[in-house]
Amino acid sequence: MLNLTNIWKRSFSSIIKDAVKAPVKNKSDLKSPVMRVKDLLCLPKSLENSKYSINGWVTQVRKMKNLTFLSVNDGSCKDDLQIIVPQKLPSEFNVGSSVKASGALGTTPKGQIELQVSSIDLVNTCKYPEYPLISKQQHLPQYVREFLHLRTRHKPFAATMRVRHSAQKAFHTFFDKEGFFNIHTPILTSNDCEDSGEVFLTRPDSDKLLQEMQREGVTKESSYFDKKSFLTVSGQLHLEAMCLGLDKVFNFNPAFRAENSKSPCHLAEFWMIEGEIAFMDQILDLTSFVESMIKNVTKNTLNSSAADINYLIKCNEAESKEFDSKFKWIDKKFPVISYQEALNILEAHSGQIKIPVKASEGLAKNHEQFLTKHLDSPCFVAYFPKEIKPFYMKSNAEFPNLVDCFDFLVPEIGELVGGSVREFRLDALLESIPNKKDLEWYTDLRKYGSACTSGFGLGFERYLQWLLNVKNIRDVISFPRWPHNCDT
Amino acid sequence: MLNLTNIWKRSFSSIIKDAVKAPVKNKSDLKSPVMRVKDLLCLPKSLENSKYSINGWVTQVRKMKNLTFLSVNDGSCKDDLQIIVPQKLPSEFNVGSSVKASGALGTTPKGQIELQVSSIDLVNTCKYPEYPLISKQQHLPQYVREFLHLRTRHKPFAATMRVRHSAQKAFHTFFDKEGFFNIHTPILTSNDCEDSGEVFLTRPDSDKLLQEMQREGVTKESSYFDKKSFLTVSGQLHLEAMCLGLDKVFNFNPAFRAENSKSPCHLAEFWMIEGEIAFMDQILDLTSFVESMIKNVTKNTLNSSAADINYLIKCNEAESKEFDSKFKWIDKKFPVISYQEALNILEAHSGQIKIPVKASEGLAKNHEQFLTKHLDSPCFVAYFPKEIKPFYMKSNAEFPNLVDCFDFLVPEIGELVGGSVREFRLDALLESIPNKKDLEWYTDLRKYGSACTSGFGLGFERYLQWLLNVKNIRDVISFPRWPHNCDT
Repeated sequence: MLNLTNIWKRSFSSIIKDAVKAPVKNKSDLKSPVMRVKDLLCLPKSLENSKYSINGWVTQVRKMKNLTFLSVNDGSCKDDLQIIVPQKLPSEFNVGSSVKASGALGTTPKGQIELQVSSIDLVNTCKYPEYPLISKQQHLPQYVREFLHLRTRHKPFAATMRVRHSAQKAFHTFFDKEGFFNIHTPILTSNDCEDSGEVFLTRPDSDKLLQEMQREGVTKESSYFDKKSFLTVSGQLHLEAMCLGLDKVFNFNPAFRAENSKSPCHLAEFWMIEGEIAFMDQILDLTSFVESMIKNVTKNTLNSSAADINYLIKCNEAESKEFDSKFKWIDKKFPVISYQEALNILEAHSGQIKIPVKASEGLAKNHEQFLTKHLDSPCFVAYFPKEIKPFYMKSNAEFPNLVDCFDFLVPEIGELVGGSVREFRLDALLESIPNKKDLEWYTDLRKYGSACTSGFGLGFERYLQWLLNVKNIRDVISFPRWPHNCDT
Repeated sequence: MLNLTNIWKRSFSSIIKDAVKAPVKNKSDLKSPVMRVKDLLCLPKSLENSKYSINGWVTQVRKMKNLTFLSVNDGSCKDDLQIIVPQKLPSEFNVGSSVKASGALGTTPKGQIELQVSSIDLVNTCKYPEYPLISKQQHLPQYVREFLHLRTRHKPFAATMRVRHSAQKAFHTFFDKEGFFNIHTPILTSNDCEDSGEVFLTRPDSDKLLQEMQREGVTKESSYFDKKSFLTVSGQLHLEAMCLGLDKVFNFNPAFRAENSKSPCHLAEFWMIEGEIAFMDQILDLTSFVESMIKNVTKNTLNSSAADINYLIKCNEAESKEFDSKFKWIDKKFPVISYQEALNILEAHSGQIKIPVKASEGLAKNHEQFLTKHLDSPCFVAYFPKEIKPFYMKSNAEFPNLVDCFDFLVPEIGELVGGSVREFRLDALLESIPNKKDLEWYTDLRKYGSACTSGFGLGFERYLQWLLNVKNIRDVISFPRWPHNCDT
């Protein structure tokens, strides 16, 4: 540790000599409270000269003859703290290195908080210029993505992770206030909710264990659970079971799709928020609930992360949109249109749409994007044909060929939330269910005081993409998994 | 819907006739606010005669000549609401059935809130007496566990899920207040943090997809990610990467172990809370942090779930312990002893311990249980021999054969938390790391302004077992997975 105590009271010319001569630790300095940059930058100027410590990473170095200015960031906010060291520091104090510093609070000529350092420790230097994320340079997202393990040192990504934290907190808080109970629905499951076929299969890696555990009539591969086990694609069915007793439940869980997709809106592993509400049998009650959730969570996230969100929207959008205009929807009612109305709109504007629309094929992403643009708002599309939707959706009472469901579409992203009233009548369910035997427990629910439930699933990463104008979904999750990529 | 409006003002003798004759919906009744039982039971008596609606499941039926008493529960709390229906209800309104009811607030002779029903809907009847969880009967946990999909209808399990919700919220809130950022560390990973070999392997179920995606030099099995991919056993290494930039991070994630274990303390899939703090290099700073976390989270969970926790402790313990005596540790300092001290204690009491203790084998559960009993407190055991601990733990500066780590032990359960200072010096790490090539990204972290970090992992289900005196870990998670069990 370079001890620079009292140096500020002396001439700068004696600084280096003293520092080298007297590396005695000053305990009172060492015990000065360790602050995070975010909190330090907010201290009132009246605390000038008070002693504080900080830890962080050097983002800039400017060396003068007898003085070094370091910019230091500790990940607590996007802004750096300027620290002034009254000597020319050795070259190991370089961009990317980590330091511990103590000193007195001061202010820059522009009135910003800075730290006038009286002791500084080099925690670790940085292999330079090999360090790939030098902060003064502009880095493209695909370049940054090559260094998944170092991404938090890249300011836009660190800001994204902070917003992700705030948004997850806002979802948890919202559900808690609304009286929902959090359920950790299982990841390993012997059934495939959507019956999509795009599932990951799993088994113990140890052949010895598989052999030991094998039972008659079970393949060795399946011997751990006595049946094939998959990674969940949705916790919905399990959430329904918990809902029939706890009334309002939600999860916030990883989900998996084994697709060979290079799309900027798909991951092999992503996080989903699913909610299920008992005794709710009207699809428009569910759209109202989802609308209030989206608005409430977004308002709270904007409140707690305004600086980061504003910064990211500017980073991510070529033509920088204003914060306010991006969120103009937040106090307006979201339109609800029927699938048929959506088709009518798309057909009336067929010239502006790449892929022609077909009633029996649902909406393509391109169609979804057009609809939100046309309506100039996020919107719900409700009442899809039964034949293109999963077995668990309830037939509409008036139009039995339609189901009481919705897709919630947002600009650029397309579908963000999908939801439905669930078929709770045993007979109707048995008619539509594809894998009766595997899902006997699910149909069994209908025998014992079942209730109609309604629920939805929201892709958390897509929500963040929408919120922050992030083009590629891989840039809003800590360690993205996509085809051929699971190295880090 | 049986409409019973105004029936309370008339003689009971005319009730059934009227109800059957005039099933007209009274809209004002239907629009009375839907309350949850928990909230309704707390309403002040001054609101007597106000109109409310509730939804829920029937837990008891008592039929009088012209009157039916139903107990109704909606999962919002352990207590039932008594509703009085001014007629003898049909047999479909049975135990386990679900109902919607509206009426006026009243009070029982004992002063408890009840609902005097003016209209009641049978949502769904219950196949009875097949219904396995009739609430008047005492059911053993292993019996209840046969009906995983119906367990929320069993009061102790529903209470457990509510406490689980409160505890997860308390953890999230604690970390947020302490300035930590939540990181969803990946589930799919190409490396095995603990190198334990007890991992689940995963691959797409579709053979066609695997074939399509296969590249030269890669087995078909591994073609999705170009390498073997496992389910995570711990997010620690990824958390460290995020920590080196964001300073304080935590996860709350599922983790997996492919063990053939019938132990009441192990699951194949469980939830872990891991925290990582940059610039922390003293193990006693970490034990202090974990101690404050345990106490803070437990106090908050006790605050928000006192009724459920008290109820569950009484349900789960044969000799009912008092709430206060169970939590007497909450305001006392947890002792920290060294591994050597732990061995000394165990050797001095060898007569009372089943398995003899061996320095090179670590502590067995039996030893852990003895230590907490002997010290009459949860406790930290610190500084284990390097050879029995994983590669990433930092050697102690004074005693290089020991590592700066701890196990946190609690009564009955044994190890609840494990933590350590991480080895952040590249040379020392390269010496101890077993799988250099797979973990190149991890050792790479040490090149670019690394910092010492310290962190820990807590098994969430074990925490709940300890909090609630639950003997079997399968009873504190919604859908437990253990060998040969993944049906529901």
